[in-house]
Amino acid sequence: MNAGIKVFAPATVANVAVGYDILGFALEKPGDEIIAKFTNTPGITITKITGAKGKLPYETEKNTAGFAAQKVLEFLGDTKTGISLEIHKKMPFGSGLGSSAASAVAGAMAVNELLKKPLTKRELLPFAVLGEQIADGAYHADNVAPSLLGGIIFIRDNQSLDVHRLPLPKGLYATVVHPNVRILTKDARDVLSDQVSLNQTITQSGNLGGFIVGLYNSDIGLIGRSLQDVIIEPQRAKLIPHFQDIKTAAMNEGALGCSISGAGPSIFALSPNSLIAENVKESMAKIFTDAKIEHQIFISQINQEGAIKL
Amino acid sequence: MNAGIKVFAPATVANVAVGYDILGFALEKPGDEIIAKFTNTPGITITKITGAKGKLPYETEKNTAGFAAQKVLEFLGDTKTGISLEIHKKMPFGSGLGSSAASAVAGAMAVNELLKKPLTKRELLPFAVLGEQIADGAYHADNVAPSLLGGIIFIRDNQSLDVHRLPLPKGLYATVVHPNVRILTKDARDVLSDQVSLNQTITQSGNLGGFIVGLYNSDIGLIGRSLQDVIIEPQRAKLIPHFQDIKTAAMNEGALGCSISGAGPSIFALSPNSLIAENVKESMAKIFTDAKIEHQIFISQINQEGAIKL
Repeated sequence: MNAGIKVFAPATVANVAVGYDILGFALEKPGDEIIAKFTNTPGITITKITGAKGKLPYETEKNTAGFAAQKVLEFLGDTKTGISLEIHKKMPFGSGLGSSAASAVAGAMAVNELLKKPLTKRELLPFAVLGEQIADGAYHADNVAPSLLGGIIFIRDNQSLDVHRLPLPKGLYATVVHPNVRILTKDARDVLSDQVSLNQTITQSGNLGGFIVGLYNSDIGLIGRSLQDVIIEPQRAKLIPHFQDIKTAAMNEGALGCSISGAGPSIFALSPNSLIAENVKESMAKIFTDAKIEHQIFISQINQEGAIKL
Repeated sequence: MNAGIKVFAPATVANVAVGYDILGFALEKPGDEIIAKFTNTPGITITKITGAKGKLPYETEKNTAGFAAQKVLEFLGDTKTGISLEIHKKMPFGSGLGSSAASAVAGAMAVNELLKKPLTKRELLPFAVLGEQIADGAYHADNVAPSLLGGIIFIRDNQSLDVHRLPLPKGLYATVVHPNVRILTKDARDVLSDQVSLNQTITQSGNLGGFIVGLYNSDIGLIGRSLQDVIIEPQRAKLIPHFQDIKTAAMNEGALGCSISGAGPSIFALSPNSLIAENVKESMAKIFTDAKIEHQIFISQINQEGAIKL
């Protein structure tokens, strides 16, 4: 009975330049892994955490993965089953790549898989969002939904989780660079003005709509023209060293767009093929290397599966 | 040689609740008609205007239809041909139904049709936009593009006329009511704050994206949830007598959405079928009738053809 199961939930890029709080896509890697096993203690118990440098709590209700797992169990009305979780963090905190979302998704998935899928993936979404809320404070699905469901996800409304998967043109590659500098999500939010000019709103709406239409029509040129953030990126760019140089380098190599991943400091670029994505990677890396800023950089297609049982 | 040709350009609903300056759709009627004939005087001459109560200028350069027509002729490098235009206005000014846009489109179409189509419809767009600019001051395609091309049009960017036709689910009907009250486009713009809260921007972007996704997926429920304007309508509603009552009546009958057409005072509702559109029409009409406000009201499918040669 107690072999247990292992699940994987991937990192994600939220906002995607033109969809602050309402767009996100899943990466192939990195991501978090959780092993779930039955135990004799009813409820969720966290027995092991690796890769977190002691920074994650073992208390179920304070842990994103634990809380999401517990909410699934509660929803199922199961007060007798005991499940233990081993959480293996395989991605950095505060990177802007949806670390807490991946943990929450993995927690919800792990319980569901161990119990032989009483719920669909889509039905797990609210519990994973509740889990991430512990870390982030906000009830937002822009990282959680793509980590769970895969693909490029558009969220009409976060409160009601009115979530839609967008079509994916062939050949898109993301280049993602994570500089080892620290930005707190709270600081990244505090730097934003709570007012936007009407003209900026019109421009950004045009770009969001253009991006969506471009995805539906596989219109790579339109996607490229649309990936321009006139609201959030100009305010947050200063938090990330060399952001403008990195962006210029990516665009010069032929990227369709380049912007901040989530609240940063990671930066993503989307490219129309793997060759351009490689060139973008080299040019981005050179700038951080020359500036002696430690960083991780990788290329990923958009992950179509989302969270999976390994 | 001089039988001439006649063209028709339809009225349009711009903004469509969630796409201020960047969405519009075409109605089947009303619209403007223009008859074009060859004359011996080089350039564009306006020989007759009906339906305008003397309010439209005969000077080509000051007339939206005349100026659009002239710009087409200039683009073709034709300095010898003379064309006369008879302009038959068949829709009210200042109604929020794109009256000046329809005239400009008809002017550009008329010249192109008389010359046996040297340009495609899409190629006529910038000249028609220049024509409308005479009346409106702004270089905007949200009425002009749907009047010319038909359908529901999304504009990523007005300056570069990055214009895209969206798919149209079957069965959508518009109910449009035009109360005989006067709103100047300038007043309708002046009433708008030039600042929007970031939260409103996120909500409205979600609704714009949801509307577009709904059109692509023929998801009528999503279209209905998306047709909510949290930015423009709350500011402009007070300019239109009984707006809230009209809207409530339409929504109670099952409309998917109801908002201001363009700068108003016309109000449109979208319904998922003709039966609901009829009920919406009756309920809307009753409110203006009870309030003794003269009005015109009609039902139209979305016009798929746009401007045509009759």
